[in-house]
Amino acid sequence: MDLKRIRNSSLHTKIMSAEEACNFIEDGMTIGMSGFTRAGEAKEVPRALAEKAKVSPLKINLITGASLGNDLDKLLTEAGALARRMPFQVDNTLRKAINKGEVMFIDQHLSETVESMRNNQLDKPDVAIIEAVAITEEGHIVPTTSIGNSASFAMFADKVIVEINMLHSDKLEGMHDIYIPEARPNRTPVPILNVDDRVGAQAIAIDPSKIVGIVFTNKSDSFSTVSDPDEETDQIAKHLVKFFEKEVEEKRLPENLGPLQAGIGNIANAVMMGLLDSKFTGLSMYSEVLQDSTFDLIDAGKLDFASGCSIILSERVNAQVFDNLDKYRDKLVLRPQEMSNLPEIVRRLGIIAINTALEFDIYGNVNSTHVCGTKMMNGIGGSGDFARNANISVFVTKSIAKGGAISSVVPMVSHVDHCEHDVDILVTDQGLADLRGLAPRERAVQVINNCVHEDYREALLDYFERACERGGHTPHLLEEAFSWHTRLESEGSMKKA
Amino acid sequence: MDLKRIRNSSLHTKIMSAEEACNFIEDGMTIGMSGFTRAGEAKEVPRALAEKAKVSPLKINLITGASLGNDLDKLLTEAGALARRMPFQVDNTLRKAINKGEVMFIDQHLSETVESMRNNQLDKPDVAIIEAVAITEEGHIVPTTSIGNSASFAMFADKVIVEINMLHSDKLEGMHDIYIPEARPNRTPVPILNVDDRVGAQAIAIDPSKIVGIVFTNKSDSFSTVSDPDEETDQIAKHLVKFFEKEVEEKRLPENLGPLQAGIGNIANAVMMGLLDSKFTGLSMYSEVLQDSTFDLIDAGKLDFASGCSIILSERVNAQVFDNLDKYRDKLVLRPQEMSNLPEIVRRLGIIAINTALEFDIYGNVNSTHVCGTKMMNGIGGSGDFARNANISVFVTKSIAKGGAISSVVPMVSHVDHCEHDVDILVTDQGLADLRGLAPRERAVQVINNCVHEDYREALLDYFERACERGGHTPHLLEEAFSWHTRLESEGSMKKA
Ligand SMILES: CC(C)(COP(=O)(O)OP(=O)(O)OC[C@H]1O[C@@H](n2cnc3c(N)ncnc32)[C@H](O)[C@@H]1OP(=O)(O)O)[C@@H](O)C(=O)NCCC(=O)NCCS
Ligand SMILES: CC(C)(COP(=O)(O)OP(=O)(O)OC[C@H]1O[C@@H](n2cnc3c(N)ncnc32)[C@H](O)[C@@H]1OP(=O)(O)O)[C@@H](O)C(=O)NCCC(=O)NCCS
Repeated sequence: MDLKRIRNSSLHTKIMSAEEACNFIEDGMTIGMSGFTRAGEAKEVPRALAEKAKVSPLKINLITGASLGNDLDKLLTEAGALARRMPFQVDNTLRKAINKGEVMFIDQHLSETVESMRNNQLDKPDVAIIEAVAITEEGHIVPTTSIGNSASFAMFADKVIVEINMLHSDKLEGMHDIYIPEARPNRTPVPILNVDDRVGAQAIAIDPSKIVGIVFTNKSDSFSTVSDPDEETDQIAKHLVKFFEKEVEEKRLPENLGPLQAGIGNIANAVMMGLLDSKFTGLSMYSEVLQDSTFDLIDAGKLDFASGCSIILSERVNAQVFDNLDKYRDKLVLRPQEMSNLPEIVRRLGIIAINTALEFDIYGNVNSTHVCGTKMMNGIGGSGDFARNANISVFVTKSIAKGGAISSVVPMVSHVDHCEHDVDILVTDQGLADLRGLAPRERAVQVINNCVHEDYREALLDYFERACERGGHTPHLLEEAFSWHTRLESEGSMKKA
Repeated sequence: MDLKRIRNSSLHTKIMSAEEACNFIEDGMTIGMSGFTRAGEAKEVPRALAEKAKVSPLKINLITGASLGNDLDKLLTEAGALARRMPFQVDNTLRKAINKGEVMFIDQHLSETVESMRNNQLDKPDVAIIEAVAITEEGHIVPTTSIGNSASFAMFADKVIVEINMLHSDKLEGMHDIYIPEARPNRTPVPILNVDDRVGAQAIAIDPSKIVGIVFTNKSDSFSTVSDPDEETDQIAKHLVKFFEKEVEEKRLPENLGPLQAGIGNIANAVMMGLLDSKFTGLSMYSEVLQDSTFDLIDAGKLDFASGCSIILSERVNAQVFDNLDKYRDKLVLRPQEMSNLPEIVRRLGIIAINTALEFDIYGNVNSTHVCGTKMMNGIGGSGDFARNANISVFVTKSIAKGGAISSVVPMVSHVDHCEHDVDILVTDQGLADLRGLAPRERAVQVINNCVHEDYREALLDYFERACERGGHTPHLLEEAFSWHTRLESEGSMKKA
């Protein structure tokens, strides 16, 4: 505990234990929590809440930025404390509960959650729980490694609990840029014109009298579990770098490509790593989550500036960054997810969006969320915010999954997160399909020739040819469209025996 | 012919016949034409081109704002003159050619076509053909009843052909507001903050030396063929008005609802007509196409201002409007479709978007384009530009089609144009489902209870219940998901025999 972290001394009386803070949380409440892609979540109060729920059952409606670290979604699920959860998650225990219909999960475009609250279409939080580096003289809250929806949650809630995390460097102060759009009908354009523009405040401005509890912690963020690039992700990166080179050569992209966004997970991170070996310099990011690759690219002198909404790093890179924050100070900004993902800015800046598909189909529709059309993996996250408004919308995936039992390129996706209009470029380890300006039948030829794994190519071509015989702008054989998925479910593989 | 309509007299030498103007058009060229929802299209040159193509075959890549009137798409299709067509159409002959795979149709979000050209991702037009009321002293082009993509086409093309339409009132001059976003990376926010803001020019500013031909015409726009409201559309309107009343009462919407957008076609027009009998006043529109309902609402003193990109009227309303343009002058503005549909503005203004579905499913996914997943009806149009960024995104449809052989509410849509994240409210003649803040299983209950026709309710509930037994966040029985569609195809009805 370090009282210097609470610079508004009138708030010193609000220091309490996590268990005491839990008393502000009642059954049926909506709770808004910090945390985005397992970074910057409040750690003590939700853990204490899970313990409490085990003995005196209670259910809350939990809304965060995105996913939580430190197994909090797991603990809360196991304690039966989650009635409703939005807008994103990545936890295996919670995922199972969602897929059993035990927790109502509302999967949302990440830029939209607080917008819906502002317009009274979603309940505002009764209590906000926000992890902070410090509280300022004015009683404003300085976030930690993510902003997510924290600022709006704290503004909307009647009661705010702050968790001061002593493990986070106080040098994080000054790295945030907190801009909140006006309520309609008097909203003005968001004045961000460049990735490095600072247009807001360094701390979350709320009336300090709303702060009802302050809890101290020493727990670290969870380390990211991204796997190292492998042969397939190297291939994906190679295809994409080659494509970028051609785009620059043909003057469709500037030398520095324009701002990049890269999605969460192993593949997007590995693809960004691929830029390390490219000739591109002067790169910038306007993205949601900043992963290892961002900092490796900065260190290599390739990336000049990164705007994001959270930082999630592996153990290797974590020390490299947080022990040397001064080095990155003028190369980084963290924004609320409403700003990092805002369609207005994505379109204005001309972002290249690189997100990951679970599967895509011959016409370029993308499924990022539902295994076999039904089971939720994580959620759509910010991929839709970026893909629709991007200058170039890229989706990447390995051509096969589960040792080849699954083809990630299918006749028809079993769930659509991104319709063909929002998908320009598809890349697998097999190759790249450039779908821009093509009609569906032409798109199919590109996808079949370039993206599908050889084990599935013939069957996919056969499907397409037979569908074309039947006709239509987007030829399909509806009675067979999901046969690959049903075969997987019944026989354990999409391959014909 | 009236030379006063060409106020830059150096251009008088460019007057020629449509046949002569056709000589600028060569096989393989990309042609950008005015015209949006059958309003304001160039009429003489495309007709002459179709004639010419019959004798000396030629194929072009035709890009417009949206659909064309005066049967031009039909004539060009019959003449075999269309290799490629984008971004929208509504013609029956062209539709058949598209569905046979004879014309490559690229169905696009209507705000994106010229953006893709600006970024060199789509070919820029070799020749632009633009219908005009007049040419100004500076040689700038004053559009007629639509702007569509005309301004950008004329700016991008090397050669511009202007069709002066003497039948359009010259009082249209001054009703347009032509704003073109800067090229990236130096783009600034679009300064539209209110539906009636004027931020651009009254005419399309191009170098007049690019005008290679001027053709005169007296042909009128095609009249709209919207049908009158019927019992089902009245019911849809009633449900929606009741919903709006409740939203206002509960302070989720302002008294005047905020700006409205309404899609093309019979149903959206009829639904807007329903507002005539409501208590709402002080309404405004920020929409794409302005149909009969817009002007009936203005005449009734209910609608204060309408921003659109084209005006398409039935014979009844056409005279009422164009013979009295002065009356509407300060209540109307026409913008390029890039501006009428821009996500940035849709989100800033907080638009209520009302678009029409062909079918939707129990989870709220919407198909607006593909009959039985394969056959193109019209195209996605601007519905995606609006739905994703709207304050409230409404989709309407009749609960059944083709005399009951088709249920518009199905287990799984056979094509996804709007994923569940972009759909807030669904309305049929049966009732209204409010899906905001609900998880998929909860959405299904709303849809089944409120929207589906009684002939199909039991079967839909049965599907949902059996799917839930199998589990998943979004329960489905993939092997049965399209059984209603395949039954329709094989037995002529979705109903079980
Ligand atoms: C799609 C997504 C799950 C991929 O994650 P990833 O870490 O890059 O990719 P991986 O290859 O490790 O795949 C993750 C899992 O999905 C499985 N998988 C991949 N394709 C699959 C398919 N078609 N069907 C079923 N499972 C599949 C993999 O086998 C792996 O399973 P495992 O965890 O049991 O090993 C992830 O990117 C995601 O959730 N995206 C949606 C949200 C989003 O795009 N946010 C970005 C905005 S910033
Ligand atoms: C969906 C759309 C076709 C509906 O048009 P509409 O004129 O309002 O509706 P109608 O009820 O007259 O339906 C049009 C036709 O579709 C048929 N139809 C309706 N539902 C159907 C279904 N589920 N399956 C097959 N056909 C269906 C109708 O029977 C009718 O056929 P007909 O022309 O042979 O009589 C039209 O709104 C559209 O093209 N929308 C997509 C583009 C868009 O939304 N643009 C708006 C942005 S501004």
